[in-house]
Amino acid sequence: MKPGMSLMRHYLQFKDFRAEEYAYLFERVATIKRRFKNYEKYQPLVDRTLAMIFEKASTRTRVSFEAGMYQMGGSVVHLTTGDSQLGRAEPLEDSARVISRMVDLVMIRTFEQTKIERFAAHSRVPVINGLTNEYHPCQILADIYTYIEQRGTSARGVIDPDCLKGKVVAWVGDGNNMANTWLQAAEILGFTVHVSTPSGYEVDAKVAGINNRDCYKVFKDPMEACRGADLVTTDVWTSMGYEAENETRRKAFADWCVDAEMMALARPDALFMHCLPAHRGEEVSADVIDGPQSVVWDEAENRMHVQKALMEYLLLGRIG
Amino acid sequence: MKPGMSLMRHYLQFKDFRAEEYAYLFERVATIKRRFKNYEKYQPLVDRTLAMIFEKASTRTRVSFEAGMYQMGGSVVHLTTGDSQLGRAEPLEDSARVISRMVDLVMIRTFEQTKIERFAAHSRVPVINGLTNEYHPCQILADIYTYIEQRGTSARGVIDPDCLKGKVVAWVGDGNNMANTWLQAAEILGFTVHVSTPSGYEVDAKVAGINNRDCYKVFKDPMEACRGADLVTTDVWTSMGYEAENETRRKAFADWCVDAEMMALARPDALFMHCLPAHRGEEVSADVIDGPQSVVWDEAENRMHVQKALMEYLLLGRIG
Amino acid sequence: MKPGMSLMRHYLQFKDFRAEEYAYLFERVATIKRRFKNYEKYQPLVDRTLAMIFEKASTRTRVSFEAGMYQMGGSVVHLTTGDSQLGRAEPLEDSARVISRMVDLVMIRTFEQTKIERFAAHSRVPVINGLTNEYHPCQILADIYTYIEQRGTSARGVIDPDCLKGKVVAWVGDGNNMANTWLQAAEILGFTVHVSTPSGYEVDAKVAGINNRDCYKVFKDPMEACRGADLVTTDVWTSMGYEAENETRRKAFADWCVDAEMMALARPDALFMHCLPAHRGEEVSADVIDGPQSVVWDEAENRMHVQKALMEYLLLGRIG
Repeated sequence: MKPGMSLMRHYLQFKDFRAEEYAYLFERVATIKRRFKNYEKYQPLVDRTLAMIFEKASTRTRVSFEAGMYQMGGSVVHLTTGDSQLGRAEPLEDSARVISRMVDLVMIRTFEQTKIERFAAHSRVPVINGLTNEYHPCQILADIYTYIEQRGTSARGVIDPDCLKGKVVAWVGDGNNMANTWLQAAEILGFTVHVSTPSGYEVDAKVAGINNRDCYKVFKDPMEACRGADLVTTDVWTSMGYEAENETRRKAFADWCVDAEMMALARPDALFMHCLPAHRGEEVSADVIDGPQSVVWDEAENRMHVQKALMEYLLLGRIG
Repeated sequence: MKPGMSLMRHYLQFKDFRAEEYAYLFERVATIKRRFKNYEKYQPLVDRTLAMIFEKASTRTRVSFEAGMYQMGGSVVHLTTGDSQLGRAEPLEDSARVISRMVDLVMIRTFEQTKIERFAAHSRVPVINGLTNEYHPCQILADIYTYIEQRGTSARGVIDPDCLKGKVVAWVGDGNNMANTWLQAAEILGFTVHVSTPSGYEVDAKVAGINNRDCYKVFKDPMEACRGADLVTTDVWTSMGYEAENETRRKAFADWCVDAEMMALARPDALFMHCLPAHRGEEVSADVIDGPQSVVWDEAENRMHVQKALMEYLLLGRIG
Repeated sequence: MKPGMSLMRHYLQFKDFRAEEYAYLFERVATIKRRFKNYEKYQPLVDRTLAMIFEKASTRTRVSFEAGMYQMGGSVVHLTTGDSQLGRAEPLEDSARVISRMVDLVMIRTFEQTKIERFAAHSRVPVINGLTNEYHPCQILADIYTYIEQRGTSARGVIDPDCLKGKVVAWVGDGNNMANTWLQAAEILGFTVHVSTPSGYEVDAKVAGINNRDCYKVFKDPMEACRGADLVTTDVWTSMGYEAENETRRKAFADWCVDAEMMALARPDALFMHCLPAHRGEEVSADVIDGPQSVVWDEAENRMHVQKALMEYLLLGRIG
């Protein structure tokens, strides 16, 4: 780590950062994105290498981290575990020791959160969660920045990083890693999540790792969850790794499709988000995801920009 | 795209560019290659990222695009579709929207031409055809540049980009994507293709996408196709994706082997080209491909240089 | 190759370089590593591309070469042969001709040494052995540098590149590519290897390619091999490619476990090395590999630094 940085940080869960750190980060995202769009070269990570370790396939995470690192001047080593899982050829702890001797930053997409935590415990360099069964902090970072960009940015480009405070986010669908991370974000940034999941797919405050049960409300009826929401968001019915449950889930989730009727209950200026890939006609109707309230392509692009700010922060600390 | 560029261009077929654009491009290739050989650093694509999407395996296309992009200062994200084809996890159009939000340029090697066209229609950035069932424009670009380099370059290094005009190119073998692209090139650049294929493997002007049937002549006998040719070229009997037809093809193509006898009918200064990999003793004899008229290794290297000029043109427009 | 370099060199075996070249290289490693640790940017290989060809999987070799090349400012194309081995789709010699037209340097990890030699014979650019069945020169380069770093470096950072001269290295275990390469190093750098292998797994001076049989001594008893050694080193019982022999080997190698008792026979300041991955409880006990004499993590990191010096030397010759 750069001399002068007092403490190495990992980003394994959304709650690893405090609200004031997010305020700083969102400001940096806005600056970094604006400069990039203006073709101003900004390459603070020349000489730095990111190792990306994928135990689950990915296009979005892959391209956003890799292109983001290149834009910052850095380099990327892309490792897939192939048939053998991380920790099979050698103890996970040994892999962490070796890889973190050679690169400056590690991103891991894996299954159990405990795996990434064990890796981080033996790593000399910062580790970023690129998706686990439990959490997906980089995606929520992108989603919140996209909200700020759409609803908390002045005509002159000044952003209000707190603009989600007091607002309502409706989560419609699976009580998965995305839902858990929204709960953590709500607790830290001061908004409320209206959660509606089919029976058997509920969120669990303990798994989500939140202390304050007031940051979310549970609704049986997804329509009620959307009522008055500032943001409606969902995910595929069957996440990667759960394909065997596909048929069961299709039946259970049938009423959890975000369609025009559902969006009509949200606030008129509500946004629709989806971390993609999307299955039109399942968790979302085509007219919603391809409609005017949808900001899904901005969300996808913002993955890249928020991750650039995140990598800058983990490697260089606060700028200026 | 850079401010000042009026219109985004794709390169999906050879006929996407006009003759005057090719004249410009070939001049740029000569300049870029000469400077590179002299160790003059030229990195106009710093900050730019190329995504390469492979649905068919490749070494030559992979290395030539990747090394070429690095030489120009840019970066590359290499995506393979693995078991799942492009368009399976999510609609192809969604992939195009997402990927083109994160990178500056996309190269695709796929099966149907319609796939790359659908991708391009929803892409925000230029798309390059790195091989489809129907066309292989980058290879023909390299082949024509190699001809210019060998036969149209003065002692002082001045090139004549039109030196193929009025000449005869003999195509011996499968009426495939290479043959189709030679036909398009002939129509645009004003030369004639003598095509000789086994029965059942003919070229089709409609598939090739040409208007002027005068740009090629069909010969039953491959010997006759080579008579008086300035350039003789062929390809493997069984292209990727057609392996099941291997035995049938071996029989059908038995007389379509470019050997010394065939080359003797061409002009004495005729060149031999092959896009590689080559199967000596099948489509070409060892003494031809390894003989003095063969320029196959220059062809391979020139893939890289022509693609550098192509990427520069698509991203930055005309230089100077 | 850069103008001014008189002769292209490959690095296929340890004995490809002379003792004085190693003295130069180790000095360069120390300088390159120190500057890197001090965040001094040193990018002499901007514009240069390394192709890495893997026929056997690898994490350590992959990350060390790739991150090392990036740190030097260069780029990497990572090629795996997948199901098809190098030389199947086209003759190995053709692959060498084509790839070496497009990149500046090639690293190959393959099976037979003859394969890498055939590739090198047809390559226009330097080729590095990244592991073959017979040799592993880059690993031994790292191991010797690690010894110099630990035992031959003054308080002011001046290194003695000859500090292994006259010393004893104990090799405990399989008479494999690592053992062969230690023998070559002993002959060139003037130390002695005490080799103890189970019956049937002996080293062979002819395979190792050494002329002077005095550079190593064979011991039936691994304890005796370790007596008085300055460095004790081992490797997994079953290297990649020999998995079918796993059970037979477990029995044969049972007494060839480097444990505390064995280390107690070596010199008190002896170091323990292992090229990793390690199987604790098989070829090494946990208390040894995780104990104070073990320098295995430094060894792993030094792979990267020695390879940076090696690539600099092959591409640019002697600096200054």
